Amino acid sequence: MDIAALLTSAGINIAVCVVLFSFYSVLRKQPSNVNVYFGRRLASQHSRHINLCLERFVPSPSWILKAWEISEDEILTNGGLDAVVFVRILVFSIRVFSISAVICTVMVLPVNYHGMDRMHKIIPLESLEVFTIENVKEGSKWLWAHCLALYIITISACTLLYFEYKSITNLRLLHIIGSPPNPSHFTILVRSIPWSSEESYCETLKKFFSYYHASTYLSHQMIYKSGTVQKLKDDAEHVCKVIRDVSLERTCKPAFCYSGTPTSSFKKFCNEMDSTHGRSGSTDMNLDTSKRECPAAFVFFKSRYAALMAAQISQTSNPMLWVTDIAPEPHDVYWSNICIPYRQLWIRKIVTLVSSVAFMLVFLIPVTFVQGLTQLDKLQKMFPFLTGMLKEKFVNQIVTGYLPSVILVLFLCAVPPVMMLFSAVEGSISRSARKKSACCKVLYFTIWNVFFVNVFTGSVISQLSVFSSVTDLPAQLAKAVPAQATFFTTYVLSSGWASLAFEVMQIFPLLCNIFQRFILRLKEDALYSNLSFPYHTEVPRILLFGFLGFTCAILAPLMLPFLLIYFFLAYLVYRNQIINVYITKYDSGGQFWPIAHNTTVFSLLFSQLIALGVFGLKRSSVASGFTIPLPICTLLFHQYCRQRFLPVFRSNSAQILIDMDRRDEHCGRVEEIYENLRSAYNQSSLMPNSSSKSECGSHEKDKDSGQSSEDMEKGKEIIKKDRPRPVQRTSSLSSDKAVFGVNQ
Amino acid sequence: MDIAALLTSAGINIAVCVVLFSFYSVLRKQPSNVNVYFGRRLASQHSRHINLCLERFVPSPSWILKAWEISEDEILTNGGLDAVVFVRILVFSIRVFSISAVICTVMVLPVNYHGMDRMHKIIPLESLEVFTIENVKEGSKWLWAHCLALYIITISACTLLYFEYKSITNLRLLHIIGSPPNPSHFTILVRSIPWSSEESYCETLKKFFSYYHASTYLSHQMIYKSGTVQKLKDDAEHVCKVIRDVSLERTCKPAFCYSGTPTSSFKKFCNEMDSTHGRSGSTDMNLDTSKRECPAAFVFFKSRYAALMAAQISQTSNPMLWVTDIAPEPHDVYWSNICIPYRQLWIRKIVTLVSSVAFMLVFLIPVTFVQGLTQLDKLQKMFPFLTGMLKEKFVNQIVTGYLPSVILVLFLCAVPPVMMLFSAVEGSISRSARKKSACCKVLYFTIWNVFFVNVFTGSVISQLSVFSSVTDLPAQLAKAVPAQATFFTTYVLSSGWASLAFEVMQIFPLLCNIFQRFILRLKEDALYSNLSFPYHTEVPRILLFGFLGFTCAILAPLMLPFLLIYFFLAYLVYRNQIINVYITKYDSGGQFWPIAHNTTVFSLLFSQLIALGVFGLKRSSVASGFTIPLPICTLLFHQYCRQRFLPVFRSNSAQILIDMDRRDEHCGRVEEIYENLRSAYNQSSLMPNSSSKSECGSHEKDKDSGQSSEDMEKGKEIIKKDRPRPVQRTSSLSSDKAVFGVNQ
Repeated sequence: MDIAALLTSAGINIAVCVVLFSFYSVLRKQPSNVNVYFGRRLASQHSRHINLCLERFVPSPSWILKAWEISEDEILTNGGLDAVVFVRILVFSIRVFSISAVICTVMVLPVNYHGMDRMHKIIPLESLEVFTIENVKEGSKWLWAHCLALYIITISACTLLYFEYKSITNLRLLHIIGSPPNPSHFTILVRSIPWSSEESYCETLKKFFSYYHASTYLSHQMIYKSGTVQKLKDDAEHVCKVIRDVSLERTCKPAFCYSGTPTSSFKKFCNEMDSTHGRSGSTDMNLDTSKRECPAAFVFFKSRYAALMAAQISQTSNPMLWVTDIAPEPHDVYWSNICIPYRQLWIRKIVTLVSSVAFMLVFLIPVTFVQGLTQLDKLQKMFPFLTGMLKEKFVNQIVTGYLPSVILVLFLCAVPPVMMLFSAVEGSISRSARKKSACCKVLYFTIWNVFFVNVFTGSVISQLSVFSSVTDLPAQLAKAVPAQATFFTTYVLSSGWASLAFEVMQIFPLLCNIFQRFILRLKEDALYSNLSFPYHTEVPRILLFGFLGFTCAILAPLMLPFLLIYFFLAYLVYRNQIINVYITKYDSGGQFWPIAHNTTVFSLLFSQLIALGVFGLKRSSVASGFTIPLPICTLLFHQYCRQRFLPVFRSNSAQILIDMDRRDEHCGRVEEIYENLRSAYNQSSLMPNSSSKSECGSHEKDKDSGQSSEDMEKGKEIIKKDRPRPVQRTSSLSSDKAVFGVNQ
Repeated sequence: MDIAALLTSAGINIAVCVVLFSFYSVLRKQPSNVNVYFGRRLASQHSRHINLCLERFVPSPSWILKAWEISEDEILTNGGLDAVVFVRILVFSIRVFSISAVICTVMVLPVNYHGMDRMHKIIPLESLEVFTIENVKEGSKWLWAHCLALYIITISACTLLYFEYKSITNLRLLHIIGSPPNPSHFTILVRSIPWSSEESYCETLKKFFSYYHASTYLSHQMIYKSGTVQKLKDDAEHVCKVIRDVSLERTCKPAFCYSGTPTSSFKKFCNEMDSTHGRSGSTDMNLDTSKRECPAAFVFFKSRYAALMAAQISQTSNPMLWVTDIAPEPHDVYWSNICIPYRQLWIRKIVTLVSSVAFMLVFLIPVTFVQGLTQLDKLQKMFPFLTGMLKEKFVNQIVTGYLPSVILVLFLCAVPPVMMLFSAVEGSISRSARKKSACCKVLYFTIWNVFFVNVFTGSVISQLSVFSSVTDLPAQLAKAVPAQATFFTTYVLSSGWASLAFEVMQIFPLLCNIFQRFILRLKEDALYSNLSFPYHTEVPRILLFGFLGFTCAILAPLMLPFLLIYFFLAYLVYRNQIINVYITKYDSGGQFWPIAHNTTVFSLLFSQLIALGVFGLKRSSVASGFTIPLPICTLLFHQYCRQRFLPVFRSNSAQILIDMDRRDEHCGRVEEIYENLRSAYNQSSLMPNSSSKSECGSHEKDKDSGQSSEDMEKGKEIIKKDRPRPVQRTSSLSSDKAVFGVNQ
């Protein structure tokens, strides 16, 4: 591939980007697309119409300016800490690759270009390989330039990483301290409550916590089984009961109970009915309830510190019983996973791990096919009828320079939903944990399939045999990576740039919107979009490009300018999307930064390893010798950061929580917080097709009035639940079933 | 090597064992050796003379009978839980290898022997290789016997492991619940107290804990710097001060203060001196104290549960400050490591890891030499003058069958002290943790150096290149392991049997005793031996033999009878040693069992891997196919055990501790416990050449009387400390500087 082909590829991509960005700037001004491009604003402002009268059909770059001007505080308030972390990853990438680009263009590129004593062609016809390290002579003294560049890149990356980690740790602490009283701080999730034939889970739990945590235990809320199968079973049982009830005692009017209007008269009625019916009715309902109870519950504590203690210390001598965790935030709870028996979890984790690895390996097939496209002779052998067409120069350039990346990108689109499914099966109790787990899976997957498999070209079997030889790895990589640098440069162009254009266009939601609006003719209210930011696809993408950048920086510095443009565009596009499009339903509190940090350190180590291999191949013992301390220092740096910062992302510290508790006491907010806690984890309001009750069913009649009115609510909920309801689609933060699985 | 050579080796070892055991049975009856062979009994009974009048010079097997008859309860009371776990490891080995021996002798051995259609020699001249799996034809249908044997061994091993783990977990729980109030349960170790220029560490700590743990904080005790350098510095400063004091104010008689007799008159004197001297004197002393304070302290809590909480939850948002851990038991504290700045620890860990790996690799040199001995032709080339001697058959048999193992054993003797040193440098805060860490290091070292390096014979470089190929590993092992089975059999004979004889003889303490008693003519009182059980050498040895047994069981079943005899002997010998010789100073609470469990599972997996390789080499696809589910099930079993049992060994559970706290309250023992706590971690009594003070120096005068008398104690300690003292050698549990570094 020569410079001209690269420029063709760049030209196509620039054209695509400009067209799509212009389209976007027009489309976003159309009132009919407001719910696609301003979903977040609509959700927060609840006003559908924004002044968009003038210049509706003229493309304009105003959105770029607006995206540029947004402050970090705005992003924090609108997108949460995760959005800030995401932007910080981009800023870090821009900074480090600016330094790399300058250093490598000034020092490395000339050395590479003049590496061999050869006649140079004119630049456009020059092969791209002339600009890579392959062009440097064996034993050349100029390799110190590469070694020095590597040092500068590593040192600047580590320094930037350190300050970013420090500042994000501080942001996380501020986020915890500054947040309004958060129910999840007072709540733990108890799973694997032991089964007893004599009493319900609810009673067992109440006994345990009132005995062992008497001074700090506040109340609890059982979790009830839900899901389609359970619903069908319940419905069948209910029908049986109704028939029996109707035939036996006609005096009771169950029809009233199903009205579901939460008026106080209804409550009174139910209360009376309950008391007149006496024991039989209530035990019936109680039986019904305990049958559907999960051995899991949310337990509320009187202080944050008490909740943290109960969550972190194993409760009994059998670690498989009374398993406690800090509860996720109410909107972050992944309800369908909470009822999974704890004993299954370890098997689920193993199964998911095995499936993910298997999926990675099966995916080799399309990747191998894509790799075949860059080698035209192979393709011509496979499809002889293409020979004529492929001789055309333009077609040739498109097929080698553009098509492989596009096919790869299309295949890669299928990966995030699959990984999200795996993470759901794994048993995460919160949506953010599921997304984080999917993010890691997608990251491993992408780096393995985009980088390693492409590097070790050839058949599937020969790739595997390469990996069997461990000590030859640096040398093998040193041979393979520079040869693939061209492919990665086009990958940055096609996958990177184009993905940003598609991201800003929101093609799929746009089409859905048009379909719903003009074909289904749904009402305006039904058209709210509620996408949450797809961190599990975007974080791995950014990190993959960082990985490619570090790996190729000193080997093929020509990639860096393209990469830098990508990061700049990404910075603008994602800031725009965070402010305008995505709704923040839950926040992991910056948990994506440790992933980014680890990946960056891995990228640095990997680039140093390849450099070692290259210097070895080029027989420059001085450069090799000087490179050896680099990975050692990088590892020490990584270890230090793990010690210093990582625990803050793992759990909260006593000091902070106690200070917050004291502050609440001082302000006299405690009772208010307790009151809010009672309704915070309401299974029925947070999750469609389910019911929720706190405390032990109808046993708790003799408690305070607040509790008994709650019992009424419960009774109502149980009765309401049995009636099939229409699926609610509101813009509230609670309904989380997003329309687009990929972006969920 | 043929059967005759093996029998020669066995004969020599049996002779050595019988002679040494007889010697032992005589020596143990000599009154002069009582302190060598009955150290523990002496320490517990405090009576030096046991009735040993009759038959003093006739060997007798009575000790074997006695060792056999000891009950597990006796071992628990005398040797602690660790001793019970050690005996359980032996019992497990005996059980599983009895099953293996029966299965393999009945099923595998005949198949191996009749594997090839060849003329068999008479048994004594038969090569040992005829009895290994190498003798089975390629594609033989009889390989199902090996496969079935592997299944039976794996299933029985896993079943036994499960029940052992369960029972040891219960024992550990009983050990915690049943123990008398243990100061370590109420105490945490705080390290990395932040430095403040305004106040001492002691005051900072007091403020922090009385603010954040007001309801549960009881008191604390600072840790003071100690060690040779600090001592010299202190002494120098002291001399300066004395000279100044003497020259300036002759009225004060500091000489009195150094008398060190802990009488009440001394206390009074000091008290008066303090009050008459007024401010200047006390601030002087205070300055002196705070200068020598470490940023570490023991903090006492009012309940076990509070202490556990404070230990497990990170205290502040900076994880490098206020680092808390559950304190080790008072006699288990490794004082010299407690003052290590916490910031150093991660570097120390890395350095230790690197050093251990380097040590392992350097150790290849003697191992390679030993391996050369089994190949006589190589030896003859290296030392031509030996040729004549080596032609003698008996010399030949000794050199090939016995010498390599002996040399290896001698070299291996140097390993445990080195690993113990590494573990000390690593920064363990307790002696038991140091021993556990050393045990792991010795284990990795032994399995690597005895097994792997011996298996991959040849030069150092070719060994390393073998390990670079990952996918060929099973096949490589399948070729190499059966070939080395003979060596391992002789290793069991020489290293195993002989080590037991040497263990029971206690050669080194015996020689020391003779030297001290008859040459130095020390008094009886000075001759107490205070060895603690060398778990860090004995656990890895037992596990190594288990590893060899599992690996060779179906490949070379002839080893199993020898191994079984070894385990039987070990069972008797170690029970005898636990009851009679070793003093239990500290107990890790069964922490060695998870190590044994993991190693056994690894051994099983490894034997399955080798079997897979062998079946592959022998082209028996059926046997290979049937073997594949085995490692998967073994891994699942391991994962289940990790989930179910391991957390109990990691930390205590809330339920148990709260129950214990309530029981104490009920019995009214609380005040008594608090009183004991004040003196439990007395640095000066537990550690020679150091001083100890609780609470904040002389600031605490206005507290209750118990505290002020404590202050007196402190003052006394500080003064006492400055005087060089004779090293105390008593039998008390507190003095732990054992005479023999190897067994320490």
